[in-house]
Amino acid sequence: MMHIYADNAATTKMSPEAIAAMLPYFDQEYGNPSSLHSVGQRANQALQDARSRIARQLGCQPQEILFTSGGSEADNQAILSAARLGERKGKKHIISTAFEHHAVLHTLKKLEKEGFAVTLLDVHENGLVTPQQVEDAIREDTCLVSIMYANNEIGTIQPVEAIGEICRRRGVLFHTDAVQAAGHLSIDVVKQNIDLLALSAHKFHGPKGIGVLYARRGVPLINLIEGGAQERGKRGGTENIPAIMGMAAALEQACGNMDAVNTKLIPLRDRLIQGLSQIPHSILNGDAQSRLPGNVNFCFEGIEGEALLLLLDDKGVYASSGSACTSGSLDPSHVLLAIGRPHEIAHGSLRLSLSQETTQEEVDYIIEAVSDTVAYLRSISPVWRDLLEGKQNFVIQ
Amino acid sequence: MMHIYADNAATTKMSPEAIAAMLPYFDQEYGNPSSLHSVGQRANQALQDARSRIARQLGCQPQEILFTSGGSEADNQAILSAARLGERKGKKHIISTAFEHHAVLHTLKKLEKEGFAVTLLDVHENGLVTPQQVEDAIREDTCLVSIMYANNEIGTIQPVEAIGEICRRRGVLFHTDAVQAAGHLSIDVVKQNIDLLALSAHKFHGPKGIGVLYARRGVPLINLIEGGAQERGKRGGTENIPAIMGMAAALEQACGNMDAVNTKLIPLRDRLIQGLSQIPHSILNGDAQSRLPGNVNFCFEGIEGEALLLLLDDKGVYASSGSACTSGSLDPSHVLLAIGRPHEIAHGSLRLSLSQETTQEEVDYIIEAVSDTVAYLRSISPVWRDLLEGKQNFVIQ
Repeated sequence: MMHIYADNAATTKMSPEAIAAMLPYFDQEYGNPSSLHSVGQRANQALQDARSRIARQLGCQPQEILFTSGGSEADNQAILSAARLGERKGKKHIISTAFEHHAVLHTLKKLEKEGFAVTLLDVHENGLVTPQQVEDAIREDTCLVSIMYANNEIGTIQPVEAIGEICRRRGVLFHTDAVQAAGHLSIDVVKQNIDLLALSAHKFHGPKGIGVLYARRGVPLINLIEGGAQERGKRGGTENIPAIMGMAAALEQACGNMDAVNTKLIPLRDRLIQGLSQIPHSILNGDAQSRLPGNVNFCFEGIEGEALLLLLDDKGVYASSGSACTSGSLDPSHVLLAIGRPHEIAHGSLRLSLSQETTQEEVDYIIEAVSDTVAYLRSISPVWRDLLEGKQNFVIQ
Repeated sequence: MMHIYADNAATTKMSPEAIAAMLPYFDQEYGNPSSLHSVGQRANQALQDARSRIARQLGCQPQEILFTSGGSEADNQAILSAARLGERKGKKHIISTAFEHHAVLHTLKKLEKEGFAVTLLDVHENGLVTPQQVEDAIREDTCLVSIMYANNEIGTIQPVEAIGEICRRRGVLFHTDAVQAAGHLSIDVVKQNIDLLALSAHKFHGPKGIGVLYARRGVPLINLIEGGAQERGKRGGTENIPAIMGMAAALEQACGNMDAVNTKLIPLRDRLIQGLSQIPHSILNGDAQSRLPGNVNFCFEGIEGEALLLLLDDKGVYASSGSACTSGSLDPSHVLLAIGRPHEIAHGSLRLSLSQETTQEEVDYIIEAVSDTVAYLRSISPVWRDLLEGKQNFVIQ
């Protein structure tokens, strides 16, 4: 049996280079970068080096890079910082979309309880917002636009540069959750007019537990974690040097190989989409073109996504129904609801997220495994029988 | 030349066992524990296993363990959670001490700005609070007592069990920052009546970037990091499984070896204290008995701590003037000020924090290196000349 890890949007296998970059910092160069002695100063040198290398990949200055424990922390800190700044100027309106990650949506919910007004833009059936929507939604009291670079479930890529240009022109801060984009799509925070950006290393073959908040110089940050003087006093806690070194190596590797990987991945993704489209009453979620090179997301009518996952697991295909972060919840994906999928369809979703290691042979195996499993599940599904007998109407034609 | 790392309170070298426990989770068992497939479920199994093992070492239930990015995050979340709970009951008074870690003090400062009243107990010249002080300070509107288990600079150990007993009896939550204590002193949260406790793995030969917030069942937590459903919805972000596994291994190891290590360390510590006490006009900071087995902290009159550190570094002795977290700051240690050391003395401090690897030979080398260096620095110090000539009075006799 093949074993195909097709859940790279949930987390990735660390690259050998990223592991190798971490190892010396566990028991050789284990100093605390805040220590004045030479053991500490070597750690501090490594920290500054990593900060510069990561800044270079994002097109920003080293002092604009803040190390966090991951993407969620970075998203929280970015949004709360912009909100507190807005508040001081009497601006308490935020623009976002309904299909952001919960690190964003739950933070916005918290701000709403405090009296902020939040406008969630329609992401349409294709999972894309338009710059014009942002332009139209900006008010006198708008302090922040937060729109994710690429969606974690359906992989759609937003026009961040054009959105950023509008925000800059209108004097509104622009934050983008780039957790799914970093290492997979090119990022240039200056060209793209991004003020705040979050990324997470374990989404591009780096270590878990480490991420970056990029904050453009001049954008004042609040502290989520109070403590020592680390990270210019904006984030307490001893810096996680091994993970930071692993992240720097992984990001350089991912950005360096990006064009080659994507040139290989896009045809594989499209082959997979093509294959799964042959399944009757199936539908691709998210725009077919403007999507992450490794992302495939389908709804299949008449089945439960969870049952599909478990049977695929038996066949060695490791996939997901949507975001890993919300699994365990019985609610259908808020992303699929946001693009207009009805509840009964949203429950029958499958996300396959490929990596540079994915082969054509694996893609063909996945197509067969999914086709067979969907057919089997439908053969035992009372809902499917009702659909066939015309007692219910098909949603997906 | 010898190389002696005597800054284990800042951070520690990872143990081989802790590193070995992490490694498989980088590129073998790299799943996201929230994923439903078997790769994810194996990661989830590891997570639950680590949670149980850590709970066992603290004497609590697995569901009372929340994984955080470290001690600072855990301290922040603990204090804010207790404050929000208190607020809802109209209780906005918090008791702490002046020599807590800044993760605690800065969080309290933030709450003061919101209208909370904070009483900071006197820690006396020996660096100890008494249970009676806590008893006397509790008011009708007290919602939290936050007193660290062992101080990070001078190593004094507070009577947490007695303090906890008073808090429990008076219906006040008790939080303790156990970052310096965990793995070095026994912890039993039930016996010690602790409601909230923070620890950090890299202080006991585990990895950086991971810690624990213990919260007694029934103590409601607020979210510092909003996001997915991880950690019972109380802490967003993909769980840092490799680090969690490393922490579990390190904590078991530290707790298992604790008696043996401390039996070896205490005589070494006392030998070091004895040796440094021979230096004229020197004084031990913190109680001589009720202190961490590896902690030595002295003030030497007439010298600058920073110069002492740099010259010791040249001799291969890696030490600190106080907390690593506040280095870079020109202010004298708030801990030393809290125990009544005047500014000019507090500037001439030296912290040496030993580990199980420290040998008697190293201790003797440190004594000689420090004695020689203090003598040298005094020989070139104008302040020392003034003291000798009676133009200034000695503070330390």
